[in-house]
Amino acid sequence: MALRIALAQLNLLVGDIEGNAGRIMTAAERARDEQQADLIVFPELTLTGYPPEDLLLRHELVMRVEAALDTLCRSISGITAVVGYPKQREDGIYNTAGVIRDGRLVAEYDKTLLPNYSVFDEKRYFESGDEACVVDIDGLKIGITICEDIWYREPAEQAKQAGAEILVNLNASPFHKGKSVEREELVSRRAHENGLPIVYVNLVGGQDELVFDGGSFVANAEGKVVMRTAFFAEAQPVIEFDGLEPVPSEVIRHQSEEAEIYEALVLGTRDYVEKNGFNGAVIGLSGGIDSALALAIAVDALGADRVEAVLMPSRYTSDMSNEDAVAEADNLGVNYRVIPIEPAFETFLDMLEPEFHNLPEDTTEENIQARCRGIILMAISNKTGRMLLSTGNKSEMSVGYATLYGDMAGGFAPIKDVPKTLVWELARWRNARAESLGHVPPIPPRSIAKPPSAELRPGQLDTDYLSPGLASTIGLEGAILLQHLHQLFEHREAQISSNHT
Amino acid sequence: MALRIALAQLNLLVGDIEGNAGRIMTAAERARDEQQADLIVFPELTLTGYPPEDLLLRHELVMRVEAALDTLCRSISGITAVVGYPKQREDGIYNTAGVIRDGRLVAEYDKTLLPNYSVFDEKRYFESGDEACVVDIDGLKIGITICEDIWYREPAEQAKQAGAEILVNLNASPFHKGKSVEREELVSRRAHENGLPIVYVNLVGGQDELVFDGGSFVANAEGKVVMRTAFFAEAQPVIEFDGLEPVPSEVIRHQSEEAEIYEALVLGTRDYVEKNGFNGAVIGLSGGIDSALALAIAVDALGADRVEAVLMPSRYTSDMSNEDAVAEADNLGVNYRVIPIEPAFETFLDMLEPEFHNLPEDTTEENIQARCRGIILMAISNKTGRMLLSTGNKSEMSVGYATLYGDMAGGFAPIKDVPKTLVWELARWRNARAESLGHVPPIPPRSIAKPPSAELRPGQLDTDYLSPGLASTIGLEGAILLQHLHQLFEHREAQISSNHT
Repeated sequence: MALRIALAQLNLLVGDIEGNAGRIMTAAERARDEQQADLIVFPELTLTGYPPEDLLLRHELVMRVEAALDTLCRSISGITAVVGYPKQREDGIYNTAGVIRDGRLVAEYDKTLLPNYSVFDEKRYFESGDEACVVDIDGLKIGITICEDIWYREPAEQAKQAGAEILVNLNASPFHKGKSVEREELVSRRAHENGLPIVYVNLVGGQDELVFDGGSFVANAEGKVVMRTAFFAEAQPVIEFDGLEPVPSEVIRHQSEEAEIYEALVLGTRDYVEKNGFNGAVIGLSGGIDSALALAIAVDALGADRVEAVLMPSRYTSDMSNEDAVAEADNLGVNYRVIPIEPAFETFLDMLEPEFHNLPEDTTEENIQARCRGIILMAISNKTGRMLLSTGNKSEMSVGYATLYGDMAGGFAPIKDVPKTLVWELARWRNARAESLGHVPPIPPRSIAKPPSAELRPGQLDTDYLSPGLASTIGLEGAILLQHLHQLFEHREAQISSNHT
Repeated sequence: MALRIALAQLNLLVGDIEGNAGRIMTAAERARDEQQADLIVFPELTLTGYPPEDLLLRHELVMRVEAALDTLCRSISGITAVVGYPKQREDGIYNTAGVIRDGRLVAEYDKTLLPNYSVFDEKRYFESGDEACVVDIDGLKIGITICEDIWYREPAEQAKQAGAEILVNLNASPFHKGKSVEREELVSRRAHENGLPIVYVNLVGGQDELVFDGGSFVANAEGKVVMRTAFFAEAQPVIEFDGLEPVPSEVIRHQSEEAEIYEALVLGTRDYVEKNGFNGAVIGLSGGIDSALALAIAVDALGADRVEAVLMPSRYTSDMSNEDAVAEADNLGVNYRVIPIEPAFETFLDMLEPEFHNLPEDTTEENIQARCRGIILMAISNKTGRMLLSTGNKSEMSVGYATLYGDMAGGFAPIKDVPKTLVWELARWRNARAESLGHVPPIPPRSIAKPPSAELRPGQLDTDYLSPGLASTIGLEGAILLQHLHQLFEHREAQISSNHT
């Protein structure tokens, strides 16, 4: 008796119910015909994608889900499928997994534990189930759980008490640094506690501000991971059970911290641009480290031919910055255009002179320059259908060191969740990867080494503004971050000096 | 035996715990010394303001609340006070009302029902209480409930079973059209069901995207409203109980629909600008109905001397628009400045010519004009410390008929929740109110009568873009809205024609 289970690690699209149904059918056919699987397990809320948020409040969505589910029941045959969807019952909506076999829904499980913290707000939408669901597939008892259920003891124990011999767990578990190890340790412990193998199927792909990292896996009853599939890509591995023992299969290695973060940024950027229907990206390139890293991510996400770079020097831009920006574009094979902002900046200063003539220069004039760049980039975006990517990092955002409608303009910011220290690490990692593959490192060493500057007034350095003296006004987290920045700059200057000797 | 209860309808500020504590002490002293009250009841979560959102996740907040509560206990004497605050207990945070008397906390009630829909997400932060709380004040048994508790039967019944003779209900109940009548009907029914008088105390003021309308009231045991205080303003009325019978007092009338909406917009705008520390507002004035109404609201919120208007005609702006804009500013006594955008528009077209030279004109050029205005307005905002108010209405926003970083730029949009049909109604209502007071009606009749146009290309009308043909791409709500717009324009044109005869 050998049961074969396919793990459908799919990249779904929130709201695209008919499209997601098509993806389910294709995967189920492949599992049946090419992989000889008996059972295929999909991610949480497969039909709607995750997180469907307030779409769940529309009656139209419920009707479309029911229609899609009917279609799946009619279309899927010769294999059992466990599919996720929101289920409207009399007292509310449930986060449900349905078992489709022989043209009908033979069982349904309602998620018991609803996460309502951090990025999750499932108590806003869903009611909680309270019953285990165990189905017999070729003589084996399969217990069903959904995502959060597996993070606590009760649902797995309840399934075991109801007779489960193998657990499957449908997930939409978003990425954060170190998450894949954390979740495997947890699920392995749960498997070992209950003496039950667990088949963990995760979603993959970027959806708005979230990235799901995939990495679906199987733990045996001792809690040992005997199969693990790819991160940050669709995959459909099969695990074979010899009785209740999963037969060890390929265990793809965990990535380094830099690699997993970089891959998350690339996938998040690609899916944001493509799922929103844009045909490419446009990006302002300053010669600094932030836009250099953002450009590398954009090229890795979309390909060089779908990315356009724009250099927009001001009266304060150094030759070094322009040279570095050109080098970055050339290294990555990206077309670039140079549009100096001086004419627009001058024009606005003239137009505003009657309003401003007695007032001293301040950040207003810096913001005007950043906003002239915003207009140029958005005009190119509007004209070409390419999405503007903004290049700000998390450190700048957290202290507000950026211009609203200026460098903050754009549909997506690839490094919005990356603090400045990590920007440097990722830049060095990306260069090292290129070197190890015999490619040109994309980011010029000078972009990495030089102290950051917004170049919006003469001799400006980020550290002039982001000084420890500001700490009292920006709270503890900002202060810690600034200390880090300062230590880094000092360390870096020491390095630069020592390079000169 | 006459118990006197003060209803402290305060305008609080989220996060300003020490400031809110000061407001509580001042109100309690006044209630004791000037109003001879025995008991003062404050709004829900008095100390943090409402809604405190993710501030609740910071341990620092819990410590500050505890310190403020200690201060209140030490400071309040000679009167009993019921104050709201988040309470950290072993298993989580509760939404709590504490009874302060004789220098200490004599009782605490934890909110039972936690709203988690629409603007509410209390299940994200709070645990639910399950016990009634009844305190004896001068021989009367006072039961305590908090906001959502009163919308369902159980908490009031539970308080009654625990001996309550009078219920007090602490609220942070936000405004929507018709809400004050709706909430009174509900609370009156609850009073009548249980045969208990209810003292309903609401928050007042704008807090980010919410407006709390006040209108605190008292229903007697038959469910009759025997006292009602002001809407959209702080107030501290006192209700006297003759035994268990509240003595009828001033019952302020409900306002007309237009009046209550307009007052909500004024209060929302004033508190957003002031609570964010800006010293006034700047607003782009086109001569159209939207910016005319937004300017009237801004002036009513902040005073004419704290508002600056900017006219930014383009090559497509009609003389009529300029004349109407000047008339609006003059009628309201607002300083205005004229800054034509042609020089900046021309400059950007020249700068972008190498990128665009083979491509036809499209909305890109319209957006550039809107964004030139955004730069000018934001520059004035940055230089003067006045907040930019944007002037888009809800109909435009719902179909995306606006320019990101252009006319959408600004810290607050006074009419963001007002559909176009209501914009016209409010404009007429505001003019009628001015006339009834012998003032100049602020909005020129032509701004109300003419068909709306963005004036970003020759002969443009909003209806050219917002046509029923677009309906299939914008969903049902958008389509209904556009039909309304069309009917209105046709009706309006007919009116204009008939005026000519």
